[in-house]
Amino acid sequence: MDIPDLHTIETAAERIKEHVHRTPVMTSSTIDSFCEAQLFFKCENMQKAGAFKSRGACNAVFSLTEEQLKNGVATHSSGNHAQALARAAMLRNTDAYIVMPETSPKVKIAGVKTYGGRITFCKPTLQAREDTLLGITERTGALEIHPYNDLRIISGQATCAKELLEQSPELDMILAPVGGGGLLSGTALSAKYLSPGTKVIAAEPEMANDAYRSFKEGRFIPSENPKTIADGLLTSLGSITYPIIMEYVDDIVTVGEEGIIKAMKMIWERMKIIVEPSSAVPLAAIIEQKVNVRGKRIGIILSGGNVDLDKLPWK
Amino acid sequence: MDIPDLHTIETAAERIKEHVHRTPVMTSSTIDSFCEAQLFFKCENMQKAGAFKSRGACNAVFSLTEEQLKNGVATHSSGNHAQALARAAMLRNTDAYIVMPETSPKVKIAGVKTYGGRITFCKPTLQAREDTLLGITERTGALEIHPYNDLRIISGQATCAKELLEQSPELDMILAPVGGGGLLSGTALSAKYLSPGTKVIAAEPEMANDAYRSFKEGRFIPSENPKTIADGLLTSLGSITYPIIMEYVDDIVTVGEEGIIKAMKMIWERMKIIVEPSSAVPLAAIIEQKVNVRGKRIGIILSGGNVDLDKLPWK
Repeated sequence: MDIPDLHTIETAAERIKEHVHRTPVMTSSTIDSFCEAQLFFKCENMQKAGAFKSRGACNAVFSLTEEQLKNGVATHSSGNHAQALARAAMLRNTDAYIVMPETSPKVKIAGVKTYGGRITFCKPTLQAREDTLLGITERTGALEIHPYNDLRIISGQATCAKELLEQSPELDMILAPVGGGGLLSGTALSAKYLSPGTKVIAAEPEMANDAYRSFKEGRFIPSENPKTIADGLLTSLGSITYPIIMEYVDDIVTVGEEGIIKAMKMIWERMKIIVEPSSAVPLAAIIEQKVNVRGKRIGIILSGGNVDLDKLPWK
Repeated sequence: MDIPDLHTIETAAERIKEHVHRTPVMTSSTIDSFCEAQLFFKCENMQKAGAFKSRGACNAVFSLTEEQLKNGVATHSSGNHAQALARAAMLRNTDAYIVMPETSPKVKIAGVKTYGGRITFCKPTLQAREDTLLGITERTGALEIHPYNDLRIISGQATCAKELLEQSPELDMILAPVGGGGLLSGTALSAKYLSPGTKVIAAEPEMANDAYRSFKEGRFIPSENPKTIADGLLTSLGSITYPIIMEYVDDIVTVGEEGIIKAMKMIWERMKIIVEPSSAVPLAAIIEQKVNVRGKRIGIILSGGNVDLDKLPWK
């Protein structure tokens, strides 16, 4: 496996720059005081299609030829990758076949429809997702674009930390949430190349702690019946993301559901921005004192902002 | 009455710049497509204390001497001016006595407490507010800082449109909400001095249409039993704001409650930022086609972001 090098990440940044936002980095003096640190929030909630996933999806789709795209692209995704891929396919005038678990948040389903994605629903298990997708790719000839276990996706997601380090240099640490590990492995690679002194630490819900266990035990452990409000972090690590994470990530910590909701509400109330639960997992790790940030410069990736406004967790 | 001139507004900008944010201007390609215009949202929801009111309050309080401030400051306010004044007083190490209607949103009451404001609750009528305040100023010797009917406040609020015009030049129109008229009169003055070709149009809830009626009938008509979700826009125009508005504002339009909620939700969903109902009134005017913006460059002042997250209007 050729782990993406700096040139590959720079090429990805160049390839996608017309199609994604250079999202802002925000700060909050109130949250800084509370955490006794300087926090730099990279606002991928304001990214196109509402999440960092647009980076990877655009990098993958825009690296394909028209011939390769002629039968469309396909994926299974609980939401944000689905929207991002549908949008990228729309930009290239091709079809996107999206397999979504029937439990996906309404807002994410609506997002896929907005971009003209063709949705097939399935049971919310990995087996059902993979079987349904296989049926579709065999029938249509569409090219599968995996949500995270794909080097083009990882290189695309890596552009997020690259930007963050340009916008807020000399970070002591970057905190990112981990689900399948696409964002996390990309973040770790960009930090290694561009700011080797910056530690990369992942935060994961206790209720979906497969990455934590895999990392600590040194062997790949798949996710089993994860039940967390952070619906973007239900997936298991992949055969490509896992080894990159083992080599380049400094630590993985876990947080409880209450901490996630508290952190999410703090971001909404104090920063006046909308983030989805997955985005709040790193701040929850700070609030729960799972990482020591005192006096340090900390980058936090707010991964997405697609949340059902009719179904908020504090009601 | 000496209407603030450009120099006065520039002095206010200089006076408050260490104490308030230069808030960002955001755009949304989705909302632009929907409205067939280019919209530039001035994000005062991200202002210190969560609203543009910090501008006026800081300008007023920082223009006073220590001697003038020795007994504190006082005001009546349904919320955002209260928080802003409490914060400004805290920065000057003096007391803030705040009279709030007992119906004020919880989040705004909590905000005043955060900044150490001393709250006295009263019935939600102008008479009760004024009577209670008079009692307090007589007892304490605190200096009243009116929420809007004060030239220092108007000059402070005027710095918002000044910044917007620097950040997004050549606007065809600026839309602002109108309650007591402090923001609106300041906006109209800045536009007149800095960009005379820019029209200034106010948007007001139909359910609190005193400014609209006053403007159209050419005589001051006070607000009577206003009942709108836009809790920042319940007040009547003042003896200072009304004549400025009559002279310098191009038009006032009104919008329904449903339109306000729809616009608010659109801003939350599409821009991933939290705004209070009052902030959504100008976009509601566009959605309801009360102003013709087609093909134009439009500035919109998002006045504040202090909203009870436990009590959202679409539940």
